Amino acid sequence: SYAKVDHHRELRNGYPEVIYSPGKTLDQIKGIVENMMKRSKGNILASRADRDVFEAIKSVTSDAIYYEAARSVVVKREEYKTTDDYILVVTAGTADIPVAEETAVTATVMGNQVKRLYDVGVAGIHRLLDNVAIINHAKTVIVVAGMEGALASVVGGLCDKPIIAVPTSIGYGANFGGISALLGMLTSCASGIAVVNIDNGFGAACMASKINKL
Amino acid sequence: SYAKVDHHRELRNGYPEVIYSPGKTLDQIKGIVENMMKRSKGNILASRADRDVFEAIKSVTSDAIYYEAARSVVVKREEYKTTDDYILVVTAGTADIPVAEETAVTATVMGNQVKRLYDVGVAGIHRLLDNVAIINHAKTVIVVAGMEGALASVVGGLCDKPIIAVPTSIGYGANFGGISALLGMLTSCASGIAVVNIDNGFGAACMASKINKL
Amino acid sequence: SYAKVDHHRELRNGYPEVIYSPGKTLDQIKGIVENMMKRSKGNILASRADRDVFEAIKSVTSDAIYYEAARSVVVKREEYKTTDDYILVVTAGTADIPVAEETAVTATVMGNQVKRLYDVGVAGIHRLLDNVAIINHAKTVIVVAGMEGALASVVGGLCDKPIIAVPTSIGYGANFGGISALLGMLTSCASGIAVVNIDNGFGAACMASKINKL
Amino acid sequence: SYAKVDHHRELRNGYPEVIYSPGKTLDQIKGIVENMMKRSKGNILASRADRDVFEAIKSVTSDAIYYEAARSVVVKREEYKTTDDYILVVTAGTADIPVAEETAVTATVMGNQVKRLYDVGVAGIHRLLDNVAIINHAKTVIVVAGMEGALASVVGGLCDKPIIAVPTSIGYGANFGGISALLGMLTSCASGIAVVNIDNGFGAACMASKINKL
Amino acid sequence: SYAKVDHHRELRNGYPEVIYSPGKTLDQIKGIVENMMKRSKGNILASRADRDVFEAIKSVTSDAIYYEAARSVVVKREEYKTTDDYILVVTAGTADIPVAEETAVTATVMGNQVKRLYDVGVAGIHRLLDNVAIINHAKTVIVVAGMEGALASVVGGLCDKPIIAVPTSIGYGANFGGISALLGMLTSCASGIAVVNIDNGFGAACMASKINKL
Amino acid sequence: SYAKVDHHRELRNGYPEVIYSPGKTLDQIKGIVENMMKRSKGNILASRADRDVFEAIKSVTSDAIYYEAARSVVVKREEYKTTDDYILVVTAGTADIPVAEETAVTATVMGNQVKRLYDVGVAGIHRLLDNVAIINHAKTVIVVAGMEGALASVVGGLCDKPIIAVPTSIGYGANFGGISALLGMLTSCASGIAVVNIDNGFGAACMASKINKL
Amino acid sequence: SYAKVDHHRELRNGYPEVIYSPGKTLDQIKGIVENMMKRSKGNILASRADRDVFEAIKSVTSDAIYYEAARSVVVKREEYKTTDDYILVVTAGTADIPVAEETAVTATVMGNQVKRLYDVGVAGIHRLLDNVAIINHAKTVIVVAGMEGALASVVGGLCDKPIIAVPTSIGYGANFGGISALLGMLTSCASGIAVVNIDNGFGAACMASKINKL
Amino acid sequence: SYAKVDHHRELRNGYPEVIYSPGKTLDQIKGIVENMMKRSKGNILASRADRDVFEAIKSVTSDAIYYEAARSVVVKREEYKTTDDYILVVTAGTADIPVAEETAVTATVMGNQVKRLYDVGVAGIHRLLDNVAIINHAKTVIVVAGMEGALASVVGGLCDKPIIAVPTSIGYGANFGGISALLGMLTSCASGIAVVNIDNGFGAACMASKINKL
Ligand SMILES: Nc1ncnc2c1ncn2[C@@H]1O[C@H](COP(=O)(O)O)[C@@H](O)[C@H]1O
Ligand SMILES: Nc1ncnc2c1ncn2[C@@H]1O[C@H](COP(=O)(O)O)[C@@H](O)[C@H]1O
Ligand SMILES: Nc1ncnc2c1ncn2[C@@H]1O[C@H](COP(=O)(O)O)[C@@H](O)[C@H]1O
Ligand SMILES: Nc1ncnc2c1ncn2[C@@H]1O[C@H](COP(=O)(O)O)[C@@H](O)[C@H]1O
Ligand SMILES: [Mg+2]
Ligand SMILES: [Mg+2]
Ligand SMILES: [Mg+2]
Ligand SMILES: [Mg+2]
Ligand SMILES: [Mg+2]
Ligand SMILES: [Mg+2]
Ligand SMILES: [Mg+2]
Ligand SMILES: [Mg+2]
Repeated sequence: SYAKVDHHRELRNGYPEVIYSPGKTLDQIKGIVENMMKRSKGNILASRADRDVFEAIKSVTSDAIYYEAARSVVVKREEYKTTDDYILVVTAGTADIPVAEETAVTATVMGNQVKRLYDVGVAGIHRLLDNVAIINHAKTVIVVAGMEGALASVVGGLCDKPIIAVPTSIGYGANFGGISALLGMLTSCASGIAVVNIDNGFGAACMASKINKL
Repeated sequence: SYAKVDHHRELRNGYPEVIYSPGKTLDQIKGIVENMMKRSKGNILASRADRDVFEAIKSVTSDAIYYEAARSVVVKREEYKTTDDYILVVTAGTADIPVAEETAVTATVMGNQVKRLYDVGVAGIHRLLDNVAIINHAKTVIVVAGMEGALASVVGGLCDKPIIAVPTSIGYGANFGGISALLGMLTSCASGIAVVNIDNGFGAACMASKINKL
Repeated sequence: SYAKVDHHRELRNGYPEVIYSPGKTLDQIKGIVENMMKRSKGNILASRADRDVFEAIKSVTSDAIYYEAARSVVVKREEYKTTDDYILVVTAGTADIPVAEETAVTATVMGNQVKRLYDVGVAGIHRLLDNVAIINHAKTVIVVAGMEGALASVVGGLCDKPIIAVPTSIGYGANFGGISALLGMLTSCASGIAVVNIDNGFGAACMASKINKL
Repeated sequence: SYAKVDHHRELRNGYPEVIYSPGKTLDQIKGIVENMMKRSKGNILASRADRDVFEAIKSVTSDAIYYEAARSVVVKREEYKTTDDYILVVTAGTADIPVAEETAVTATVMGNQVKRLYDVGVAGIHRLLDNVAIINHAKTVIVVAGMEGALASVVGGLCDKPIIAVPTSIGYGANFGGISALLGMLTSCASGIAVVNIDNGFGAACMASKINKL
Repeated sequence: SYAKVDHHRELRNGYPEVIYSPGKTLDQIKGIVENMMKRSKGNILASRADRDVFEAIKSVTSDAIYYEAARSVVVKREEYKTTDDYILVVTAGTADIPVAEETAVTATVMGNQVKRLYDVGVAGIHRLLDNVAIINHAKTVIVVAGMEGALASVVGGLCDKPIIAVPTSIGYGANFGGISALLGMLTSCASGIAVVNIDNGFGAACMASKINKL
Repeated sequence: SYAKVDHHRELRNGYPEVIYSPGKTLDQIKGIVENMMKRSKGNILASRADRDVFEAIKSVTSDAIYYEAARSVVVKREEYKTTDDYILVVTAGTADIPVAEETAVTATVMGNQVKRLYDVGVAGIHRLLDNVAIINHAKTVIVVAGMEGALASVVGGLCDKPIIAVPTSIGYGANFGGISALLGMLTSCASGIAVVNIDNGFGAACMASKINKL
Repeated sequence: SYAKVDHHRELRNGYPEVIYSPGKTLDQIKGIVENMMKRSKGNILASRADRDVFEAIKSVTSDAIYYEAARSVVVKREEYKTTDDYILVVTAGTADIPVAEETAVTATVMGNQVKRLYDVGVAGIHRLLDNVAIINHAKTVIVVAGMEGALASVVGGLCDKPIIAVPTSIGYGANFGGISALLGMLTSCASGIAVVNIDNGFGAACMASKINKL
Repeated sequence: SYAKVDHHRELRNGYPEVIYSPGKTLDQIKGIVENMMKRSKGNILASRADRDVFEAIKSVTSDAIYYEAARSVVVKREEYKTTDDYILVVTAGTADIPVAEETAVTATVMGNQVKRLYDVGVAGIHRLLDNVAIINHAKTVIVVAGMEGALASVVGGLCDKPIIAVPTSIGYGANFGGISALLGMLTSCASGIAVVNIDNGFGAACMASKINKL
């Protein structure tokens, strides 16, 4: 009654429903996991999960794995599939890594090959220019950046692949919890960039996975 | 001196620089068109162009065509290329059509097959449900919607293709010039959706074109 | 002196004053409950009450009941009345349930029949379409949704009953504590929808109760 | 192609689709009116219509009437129905009348009895207190107010009928185009109030009409 | 070096500098109190002081008194003066009392007669109408209200004394930490009202004290 | 029917209702003036009146005077009263003068002595320091300033009279139509300042007039 | 009386008071120019001046020159001084040129050598990298950019000179009149950047001039 | 992999990369410090460091020093250089000192002479006027102020040196975490002022250091 799991989502969207953990009680999360385990044989992902959520799921099934940096729990019942093409996850700074890891883990669980290129922000732009090849060989590029998010514009100017920009809430003051990066990415002078919600590593992975499997 | 046209953009990004008309004088626009005509043999696009801009470009070259609904000028020097796969442009209402046409014309000029599905907003959801096939056969779907932008979420729930959401400024009051649709699309409960700037039909076409040509 | 309880509110508004707990000391709450118990024989409701508030009221009267999911305390001195027509409370997700329960409990205490339909958000729209009958047989429908709040628009398009939309603060980033859902509901392309404050399950129940008793 | 008129809306929602004029070309509006005239025999309403829209519709059918204060066009092909119960439309000031008239005309066209009580704002509260009877005998009350919108709270405290509050953009400075009234109405200390978009006389009428016909 | 106490403020402004506690270390506060005790013989007030601040000041002088509800510390070295005319402090609800007490204590320490009228919000307007006499006999009226702050407008309509409105952060959701009350008070349809910062009981007392001593 | 003039306002508030012109038709304004002329013998003030409003009122009565800089019309049927004490109106710049004149004319019509001190903003602070005497001899001081509104804080630090701060919309960019001045005045480090709405010269005059007549 | 020209500003600030034209009547502007011409022999600058302002000043003195692109009038009574070091003005796009010209003309009038580097935005970053030498040989660099303002960050990463960033209002939608660029520049991941108001070419020139003359 | 330290930053920007501590794990910070110690012989600065960060760095090298008021850690491997000219750091109040100390320590580590002038806010303007000499003898002035930030404007009016304004988040209510000071400083009526992010003492020091070394 508290949850109507969407068992057909994989059919419609290409990947099953993911459990968004905040706002659910641990009992609700356990019940949803049990319900999903009965209805399918696939892997199950819980996002934005702190260690308590992991312990709760662990008490239901020993297949639970915790990706701490990504704050993600996977009930891993089969090997992850993979692809020849890769999704590239780029960050501006070290502090953006948790969001990037949420993206990378989600995309991996959804059966994609993923590569990472971290801490190449525009304050030292040679770090980016040294890596143009790995960017242009990706099938799609996810740019994760906080503060002013300028990295998305610079990558946008350098590459002919679709770019998914993830603004992060890293910063303070006029960053306003990620608004500066969000607005910067939405109004980028470069083109071929689309944006997901602040800190939404999950959503970027969904979009990238759909593109990667075209 | 007033413009450094980026003649390598097609090499890097897959399509040439587009002239963003607002804020430029008619003389500057004419100068840029002449400069681009000298350096390449391809088509030239000017976006957000009112009739004055069209007349100015027309005075430089008789190849200029005006797509009025899209507020776009094309200096058409060769036939548009096209693709087997199509980009689908969907609108919630009739008033969103100008933005949708900017998207459709831009994508067409960039060499893509484009289909249109207009006025299928969620207030009469059968209009959308009747058209699930054309949505799921597209390579990528652009959802153009104002007011609360709910159409993006509903399409997101129904389809396994990447979705590019374009919030429009259609609405009044708490719409705040498109903010309600923008925020709605960014925080959608559906996944696999990425968002461009308010009224940014051009940007959506760039992203879709990159995806369509993968 | 710290409180002038409005003992005529039932006469004027159809239901008695409800104690809004935040910002009051436990001693003030106890004093108000004692005062109200002296002046009337009816049930007393305290909203937004954490367990401390419940314990405080419990120390004054053993008739206190705690509805935990709804964060509501009732001093239950007579059976709740009920109605033939029902108010339907719908949620988009599991995480919206606390606000929905505040609505459901408040409406029940005010003497209404209440039905619940939870977790039918638009990301899996069949969950909603399967339940059109229970929606259209209600006297009024309360839609509780966070993130982009699109559920209100879709229900609005499907039903001829007055709809009260409750945006919730469920979400993150560009949700801005419920603003995305609030703006989405205010600017809905569907009609016959009115909106209450973010997370205001209480207010929705008051409005619905007035409608249900017409 | 530019419009998919929702011919079943009356069946689902209790009143037919209304033409929202802004953002549509006059040719589109004429086409929609012709299309609707072919498919039904009922009255047709176009909202937010300036005189140009009226002239355009008039060129299609001589049944067109212009309600100037309400900025509404009606293609009146049958007498308006009415009800025994009435909807009361209240305004705080004279400047709120255009929004109030949009509400009153819409509700009338939808077949409701409507009464008006204008210019009774709280700066001279005796004007309101003198009219408590007409308020409490209504089936539902629509409060139209700009500036700080305090009238909604005061009416809310005086009456046991559902109240639909319409914030208007009347005011300047920190009114921010109606935000002060909108926020005030959403956070009212009185209960049993629900709110529609700024200046949304139309939406208030839809909600009231649904309530009035229960 | 960390503080340049403004020892002439009483000469220029009519009351001495008040210590604003947040952001100062306890050692800094003690140092400032000691410095002020050396330079004058008058009372010293520290605002926004939690119990730690009180203990710190108490360790410097046994004359320290803690007004808990007002979160104010007074180093009371002489009796408070008083006036024949009184300042009236009115609140909308019980939860607004802490701000009202900050006002009342500050005004008292500054040598004014103060009267209180609490919990007379507009949801039950008879509570206010019963007290028109005490309002109109005051020299100036301070209205303290959260949520939508409508009380200021209603008092403004009833009284010929200058009104100082203090918006409070009481409320949730679209209250946005006091913005709804602040905007409502600034855009009031009543006149003769001026506003201070959200929760700024201190500032209201300063303004009222200046008026009361004219 | 379109207006319920508040003929008792002078009794309650000390000055009669003023006609706020925006949003009223010229016919409505004429009707209100005629109605007021019948019911009282006093002067009548219409604020925010452009020349059209003046001509309309002039067509009703030859007693109409237009104060252009103040955008105010007075139907002058008796000499303005005056007071021994004066209200001082101070501006930061030349561009703030229209708002200052609205204040000065309103206060004059309400029967107060008014003095002006214009263009003494803090960028050249000697202009203010040269005028400390005229400031401290006023009964109350109205500070009118746009941009960052710092003048209010500096005057606040120099004077023991109640200060009414009027933020103006003079400025651009991050001024956001007066928000920078408004927020600056509300959060001033000086005390004894209260604030009215952006550009609200009228409201400042009402407050000052009430203080001046205590 | 309407203006107290600050004749000592050159002594205190290093350059004389500049006339900010908006909000002043043409008569006031003429009066101020005449007053300044009497008190000093230097050049006089009026900023944000449209052609009407120029004509008005021209009617006072034939020394008036109009810099149209910069919307600046100079009463040129002596040759501009210059410096060995230069201030570099950089723009992201062609549409930012009006703000850049306001900066360049102001700095020139204040006696500085100025160089221009226009249309080198990050969407084609080679345009910037080709010009590193002219950037690093400047004494200070002014970066003028709209949209997301990323150019400031990239220049900040490349150069050891103080950078003054000027956000412009070029853009639409989520640009919000320059907010996206403003926030991006304030939260830049690069360091050694300080920001002036949106479109404030004048302010950037004042800051640069002070630095250039150190 | 988690960090690409920018070892050439000193060459390009004049000072080495600074470690921004928030969002980094202690292990990451230790790794970055070790990496930087291997690549250069200079001092290393970690900003926004709480005591945990200090302890972590201390475990790597005994050269770590903690500047508590500035929340800064320095790995001090050589004496700080200094300059003949000094940077002046001014604060409005005592509560602004932590931000001022971050500025002062950063500038000192970067090799500049620094002087401090604290608690000279405009509420007691004589405190500032008494110190005009130390202000005008500085090479550049950093003004650190919260609340309305008026101090920047007043200093701007008094001095011919470049001014870097740092808005702080000191204040409450309509301060909105520093927005009131930020907007005030951006829209200052004084000129020659540029602004950094709220609470960004670090950024102000970088800008000042670049200026001081010209
Ligand atoms: N306190 C601070 N405030 C703003 N930016 C800083 C601060 N400290 C360091 N930075 C910048 O942040 C960048 C480091 O980001 P990250 O790669 O996440 O370590 C550095 O290059 C600095 O320019
Ligand atoms: N980290 C995440 N961020 C945003 N959306 C998510 C996230 N994880 C799951 N979701 C979405 O949230 C929906 C679940 O909502 P609920 O019914 O409350 O569990 C799923 O259908 C997902 O599409
Ligand atoms: N959960 C709630 N949300 C909004 N308003 C409430 C809630 N509970 C009670 N109220 C209202 O708040 C008023 C009480 O305010 P107070 O005088 O501070 O107790 C009551 O009259 C109710 O109308
Ligand atoms: N509760 C308060 N709210 C607002 N301002 C205050 C408060 N208490 C003291 N102040 C003001 O804050 C100033 C002190 O700032 P500071 O130099 O940081 O101590 C005093 O001059 C007072 O005018
Ligand atoms: Mg880094
Ligand atoms: Mg339609
Ligand atoms: Mg769910
Ligand atoms: Mg009126
Ligand atoms: Mg109460
Ligand atoms: Mg001036
Ligand atoms: Mg360009
Ligand atoms: Mg101080």
